[in-house]
Amino acid sequence: MGIKVAVLGAHGRVGSAIVEAVKEAEDLDLYATVDEGSQIEDIKGADVVVDFTTPNAVMDNLKYALGEGIHAVVGTTGFTPERLEQVRSWCQESTAHALIAPNFAISAVLTMAFAKQAAQYFESAEVIEFHHPNKLDAPSGTAVHTAEAIAAARKEAGMDACPDATDQSLDGARGADVQGIKVHGVRMQGMVAHEEVIFGTQGQTLTIRQDSYDRTSFVPGVLLGVRKINEHPGLVVGLDEYLGI
Amino acid sequence: MGIKVAVLGAHGRVGSAIVEAVKEAEDLDLYATVDEGSQIEDIKGADVVVDFTTPNAVMDNLKYALGEGIHAVVGTTGFTPERLEQVRSWCQESTAHALIAPNFAISAVLTMAFAKQAAQYFESAEVIEFHHPNKLDAPSGTAVHTAEAIAAARKEAGMDACPDATDQSLDGARGADVQGIKVHGVRMQGMVAHEEVIFGTQGQTLTIRQDSYDRTSFVPGVLLGVRKINEHPGLVVGLDEYLGI
Amino acid sequence: MGIKVAVLGAHGRVGSAIVEAVKEAEDLDLYATVDEGSQIEDIKGADVVVDFTTPNAVMDNLKYALGEGIHAVVGTTGFTPERLEQVRSWCQESTAHALIAPNFAISAVLTMAFAKQAAQYFESAEVIEFHHPNKLDAPSGTAVHTAEAIAAARKEAGMDACPDATDQSLDGARGADVQGIKVHGVRMQGMVAHEEVIFGTQGQTLTIRQDSYDRTSFVPGVLLGVRKINEHPGLVVGLDEYLGI
Amino acid sequence: MGIKVAVLGAHGRVGSAIVEAVKEAEDLDLYATVDEGSQIEDIKGADVVVDFTTPNAVMDNLKYALGEGIHAVVGTTGFTPERLEQVRSWCQESTAHALIAPNFAISAVLTMAFAKQAAQYFESAEVIEFHHPNKLDAPSGTAVHTAEAIAAARKEAGMDACPDATDQSLDGARGADVQGIKVHGVRMQGMVAHEEVIFGTQGQTLTIRQDSYDRTSFVPGVLLGVRKINEHPGLVVGLDEYLGI
Repeated sequence: MGIKVAVLGAHGRVGSAIVEAVKEAEDLDLYATVDEGSQIEDIKGADVVVDFTTPNAVMDNLKYALGEGIHAVVGTTGFTPERLEQVRSWCQESTAHALIAPNFAISAVLTMAFAKQAAQYFESAEVIEFHHPNKLDAPSGTAVHTAEAIAAARKEAGMDACPDATDQSLDGARGADVQGIKVHGVRMQGMVAHEEVIFGTQGQTLTIRQDSYDRTSFVPGVLLGVRKINEHPGLVVGLDEYLGI
Repeated sequence: MGIKVAVLGAHGRVGSAIVEAVKEAEDLDLYATVDEGSQIEDIKGADVVVDFTTPNAVMDNLKYALGEGIHAVVGTTGFTPERLEQVRSWCQESTAHALIAPNFAISAVLTMAFAKQAAQYFESAEVIEFHHPNKLDAPSGTAVHTAEAIAAARKEAGMDACPDATDQSLDGARGADVQGIKVHGVRMQGMVAHEEVIFGTQGQTLTIRQDSYDRTSFVPGVLLGVRKINEHPGLVVGLDEYLGI
Repeated sequence: MGIKVAVLGAHGRVGSAIVEAVKEAEDLDLYATVDEGSQIEDIKGADVVVDFTTPNAVMDNLKYALGEGIHAVVGTTGFTPERLEQVRSWCQESTAHALIAPNFAISAVLTMAFAKQAAQYFESAEVIEFHHPNKLDAPSGTAVHTAEAIAAARKEAGMDACPDATDQSLDGARGADVQGIKVHGVRMQGMVAHEEVIFGTQGQTLTIRQDSYDRTSFVPGVLLGVRKINEHPGLVVGLDEYLGI
Repeated sequence: MGIKVAVLGAHGRVGSAIVEAVKEAEDLDLYATVDEGSQIEDIKGADVVVDFTTPNAVMDNLKYALGEGIHAVVGTTGFTPERLEQVRSWCQESTAHALIAPNFAISAVLTMAFAKQAAQYFESAEVIEFHHPNKLDAPSGTAVHTAEAIAAARKEAGMDACPDATDQSLDGARGADVQGIKVHGVRMQGMVAHEEVIFGTQGQTLTIRQDSYDRTSFVPGVLLGVRKINEHPGLVVGLDEYLGI
């Protein structure tokens, strides 16, 4: 018998990819799918529910699921500190656990974690992100978060600014400055979502690069959450703890 | 018997690397080396002279060499249109030929040539250059030239601007704008000089990347010039013709 | 009025992507689509027909199309020298032209073309290809062709073997040997189809890399063929001539 | 007052680079240099000694240094388990500590550490190493160790073999097999030493790449050892503990 998985928002782009993945996984059973036209009570009896719905719907979903003792893996956005506190208290009253993560792409989460670990050992650090040209913001939120994490690690280690003798520059040539870390955004037809972090010191560089080739790159992270949530009590925010980092 | 090569500016950083390379090449003979303390007449009898000297010295050197029927491979800077015209006329009065090139790094010259050829087939094009942090200008001159060449090829083909939906951006995130082509400059301890040109269209990208790992990357281009100059009459500017591009 | 385009094999994976692309292009009109259940005569009156069908069907299709004065852009496989000769003679009797290409991915075709051009200037050359793990052959046919093209260019230039001092090696560590050029095949979950050609000489390398991110990377090449076929009389095999290389 | 550093093997290629680096570092004082013609007693009074000498000399050096209460940072090779045990016991009798590491290139050590951490989250993993063509062994020892570490992490996590449908292959195309992990060795004129580890799962890859651009890439790791050795009691083997990994 596999883990009984219910999927909320099952008709959405993300939800349907998760439904497919659960069907294909030998250790998982697709127990219920819920979307407009069906009701949350259908998940009763599941082991884990996956919620990629909307900020409007997610809190009611979680209240019900945790109340029924069903673990919840959540990729829905819009969690304020107050909402997180509410979910935390529901977990305390329940035998069920919750995982809420803004990013389920394992390669992206590891890239940021490794960047934090490496930051203090290299004088230079820059971030380049590459996305399809329909993206509205530059740099990407992930790249900004990565740069902030590097900056924080450097600050904690008491490091100086990255060396840079530039004194003659075209506007924008050196990228955006995020707390002293330069971030460059490339917009390229054909690409999907890619991030590269480069660190340099004497005679060497270290490059950590993440490539998302299609829109299903969140699937392995969601399945990891489903499989391991029984080992992570209470509310966990972000995939890091699940990745042992 | 190999080609008899004389090196001017033989004690300089560049010149001494060329002296080494000529000594090691089986098909080349080091005929003479000239620097402060020795005189230009020492090159008499050489087949080819290599000049990496100074703008002050180079015209006298070329007048002498071409007058003696000695081919000249020149990496010295400071050639105005007037100077080029003068060298061209010396070549016409001589059996000797001249090659004057701003860049002898074959990989860099090919990168630009391939970028020009590819430009019209891809909606998106961007340039990223990477250098050691002591570099004073950003972007590098080579990257700017590459972007200009891409922009010219796109214009000739009647192409629209690169697609870019960015409407919210940190200053500099999208790089410097060189005639509509975005150019990003990375400054990284440990790196030397590297340039990457990325082209994108539906479902695919093409990347052309050049890495210089040390300061002798001009050597193969200079030797190519020495070996082939007898096949390229008159004055040739730039290594492209020698590379068949 | 745009170019009137008919698509054969319109329900297939490739054909349907071409149908989509023709619909979206402002300068192209989707004139007819043919697949099982419809008949070839529907294309009568088109300017160009695109054929991604089967070796069994393609010759009848081409006989009809060229006989009607309709240009043909063909990605169907299975063309023997005899078949090509037959198509060539049909073209001679017609005002219509034909383009038959084994590979319409522009980035892949340019990668091979640039590799050929660069080969003689670098002592070292190797090819790495990356594909999804369901691929049956290693190395990919494209990588083998690229290596053969490099080997031929080196031979024509009278070059020695690539330098390689390896005298202690695990089986397979140095890749497959294709006429003296080492080819490495990587099989990686998540990847689609990628090829990297690396050239090296003193102090520098040149890397040409092609990434296919999804299965529609042939579309821009097909549209290029449709738009330019009236400029390329007779039978043209391969996209190179259309790319000016 | 900076840390007083003595360098053994100061005239060697490695030693002289360390001498340079110590001179340039504001927080370090070059206290003594020892090589043939000078004697080990010159280091008396130093805080830390750096030993890049020979297997023949290193044990006498360590006995003296640790006996004098001088910390020792050691890159010399040839340490058997017996020798390590001996050094460990000298440390126990001393107030001084020892760091013995086979690899001081921080980027290489981090690459292996991150590869271990990431391994269990990706179905596919392969290693590509790139070196100058004078290298005698393929794959490099570092690449083999990296592959072994990945294989061990996969085994511990109970993972299946990397997916690979290849059923038709040129000899060597899929690389060397190191405990189920494919390792590819590229030999390229112009390159120095580079290693790339690629991990893949659904829709994404993670790449960790290390580039050594010159022969001084061990310097930052040695200086890190010198600066932190007073915080790491006893004998520490390998730089990992110093890097917090």
